Amino acid sequence: MRTDQNKILCSYYSDPNPLVLESGQKINEHQIAYETYGKLDKNKSNTILICHALSGDQFVASKHPFTGKEGWWGRMVGPEKPINTDKYFVVCANVLGGCMGSTGPSSINPENGKTFSLDFPVITIADIVNAQLRLIEHLGIDRILAVIGGSMGGMQVLEWAASHPKKLVSAIPVATSSRHTAQNIAFHELGRQAIMADPDWKGGNYSESKVSPTKGLSIARMTAHVTYLSEASLTKKFGRKLQDKKDLGFGFDADFQIESYLRHQGLTFVDRFDANSYLYITRAMDYFDLEKTHKKNLTKIFKETQNRFLVVSFTGDWLYPTSENLIIVRALTAAGADVSFVNIDSDKGHDAFLLEEPQFDKTLDGFLNSVYSSLG
Amino acid sequence: MRTDQNKILCSYYSDPNPLVLESGQKINEHQIAYETYGKLDKNKSNTILICHALSGDQFVASKHPFTGKEGWWGRMVGPEKPINTDKYFVVCANVLGGCMGSTGPSSINPENGKTFSLDFPVITIADIVNAQLRLIEHLGIDRILAVIGGSMGGMQVLEWAASHPKKLVSAIPVATSSRHTAQNIAFHELGRQAIMADPDWKGGNYSESKVSPTKGLSIARMTAHVTYLSEASLTKKFGRKLQDKKDLGFGFDADFQIESYLRHQGLTFVDRFDANSYLYITRAMDYFDLEKTHKKNLTKIFKETQNRFLVVSFTGDWLYPTSENLIIVRALTAAGADVSFVNIDSDKGHDAFLLEEPQFDKTLDGFLNSVYSSLG
Repeated sequence: MRTDQNKILCSYYSDPNPLVLESGQKINEHQIAYETYGKLDKNKSNTILICHALSGDQFVASKHPFTGKEGWWGRMVGPEKPINTDKYFVVCANVLGGCMGSTGPSSINPENGKTFSLDFPVITIADIVNAQLRLIEHLGIDRILAVIGGSMGGMQVLEWAASHPKKLVSAIPVATSSRHTAQNIAFHELGRQAIMADPDWKGGNYSESKVSPTKGLSIARMTAHVTYLSEASLTKKFGRKLQDKKDLGFGFDADFQIESYLRHQGLTFVDRFDANSYLYITRAMDYFDLEKTHKKNLTKIFKETQNRFLVVSFTGDWLYPTSENLIIVRALTAAGADVSFVNIDSDKGHDAFLLEEPQFDKTLDGFLNSVYSSLG
Repeated sequence: MRTDQNKILCSYYSDPNPLVLESGQKINEHQIAYETYGKLDKNKSNTILICHALSGDQFVASKHPFTGKEGWWGRMVGPEKPINTDKYFVVCANVLGGCMGSTGPSSINPENGKTFSLDFPVITIADIVNAQLRLIEHLGIDRILAVIGGSMGGMQVLEWAASHPKKLVSAIPVATSSRHTAQNIAFHELGRQAIMADPDWKGGNYSESKVSPTKGLSIARMTAHVTYLSEASLTKKFGRKLQDKKDLGFGFDADFQIESYLRHQGLTFVDRFDANSYLYITRAMDYFDLEKTHKKNLTKIFKETQNRFLVVSFTGDWLYPTSENLIIVRALTAAGADVSFVNIDSDKGHDAFLLEEPQFDKTLDGFLNSVYSSLG
């Protein structure tokens, strides 16, 4: 992706104060690109913060400026939808390290006028959340009604609840984990290796050249995409169906629909995503380990929490399976937290949280109503 | 891998007769590299044919000539082992399309004196089996006591039983499937794309150059390797353990042991495997669909079979899960075949068939004894 980030039409917050990172490094000044939907009420009590996943962005319910596609959670966010923008004030920010307007490796380093590239410091989920906190404070919001997110979004939700519980009424981690497992790290490492093996990556310094590591990034995306779908959903959707041909081609072109589909997923991704951002964000996810960051076990982390929790998992999700979500539920229960847990029967894989799952919609709608009305 | 295949010390069979392939193309002459262990008995009734998996070779129980490592199934094959070479005559051949001495894309095309590369015809599991049949006939063996193989080896076993039932007494497909699923194809496609994206692949024509697509092949191997292990085995073996460091490195070097392990798996693979062979063999696996090849359903394929079958699956295998093996068992049962099925409780993933699993050893030993003694 090659774009002038400041040309992306959305809201921006520029923070002139240094952001000290979990690594000990700091970013002297940074910018966060975000979108809002609905209106903040008089009491400033109706904010829902949505945290996006690895390949997501701030355009949760508005057209993507590059692809022209509807927002990635348009089915969930809008007037009379479960996250009802007639009622709630919705904020969604591009993560620190991202490539849709927030400061990241493709941004210009104000100290030398050059693209950061690999000079950008490695960030963590806690750093991403700290930048979001600055934005929320800038918007004049003392307390968020609910912070919600799936996958990497769910990691941010857990970090919000762990580090800033008084800033929240409720937290909704979806299809996520309290730490990245070896298998999660392994799949990310494949993607990073594919990017770094692409000669057009140029050791990360491709910003000044006419090329970028599109082949490597495309393979990284294809790899991730396979992990987002269940075997059942792949079989149902593609099986062994051939792509525009009557019989096997006996060659290395795409014979099967699943091959064409993956190639398409890879090719379209490079138009909207930066390869170095992909490295930094996957690294932040791999580093995610709530117990390590907070130097205590999960139950102790949530010991004093007054937040209400809704944990959601999907039966067909093998990337962040129900068992990983249950670790969170058990720790919250042991900590005496007010926690609801729903394991939704779905064969759609990890992507289920983004897709049509009526039980998820109903659960979310009910929980948000309950939390909002409890404010009195 | 760059090597003169004929320098590999093993047995060779050169077949001067054309081999007509499933695609309709033909290979005018070909060579099969193989190893044998034990002695053929007077009645020529004690042959066990072992079919290797994607990255395997003929060195099932002898040192690999490049790596110096013990044979890939040394724990299973040898004197007094379950496949007892004091008792059985064991044959294992490098597959057609392979790179350990059998004719494949890295072989010289005798018609023009040049390396085949992508001029090598796309082959199928049935073609691989037909070449094995020629070898077995050349060795003067009318009937094989048992043909056994795991993963792609199991596909060959099924194809042997489907096409040449009278050449066999028994068939032992292990951790396999009667057709490659969309998810199986997807993971292979990732590997192929990684190889073909490597500029050193040169459209397949790297044989004359000083380089070969080692980066792409390495990523392909890493990808496959992740699918061979279960989440449980990865967590047990690696978890989030760091590699030779006390804390996170906040960079893109390998911080986690799982990262180092995968990089090592990738790097060592390129010393013993040819990238084009990897393309051809994964393609043969993706094309594998017994019902399509035989133009009837599985039950009908095995309707008249007199073979005895032992089907083995492993509970922790998510690549060729128990459910896929059960499809084979059900079809064989419906066909009235003599079939035993064992689902072995293991958390080792797909690789379980290669690893220490005492129940597998016992089952195999018992089945082979029973089949051999039934010959009277």
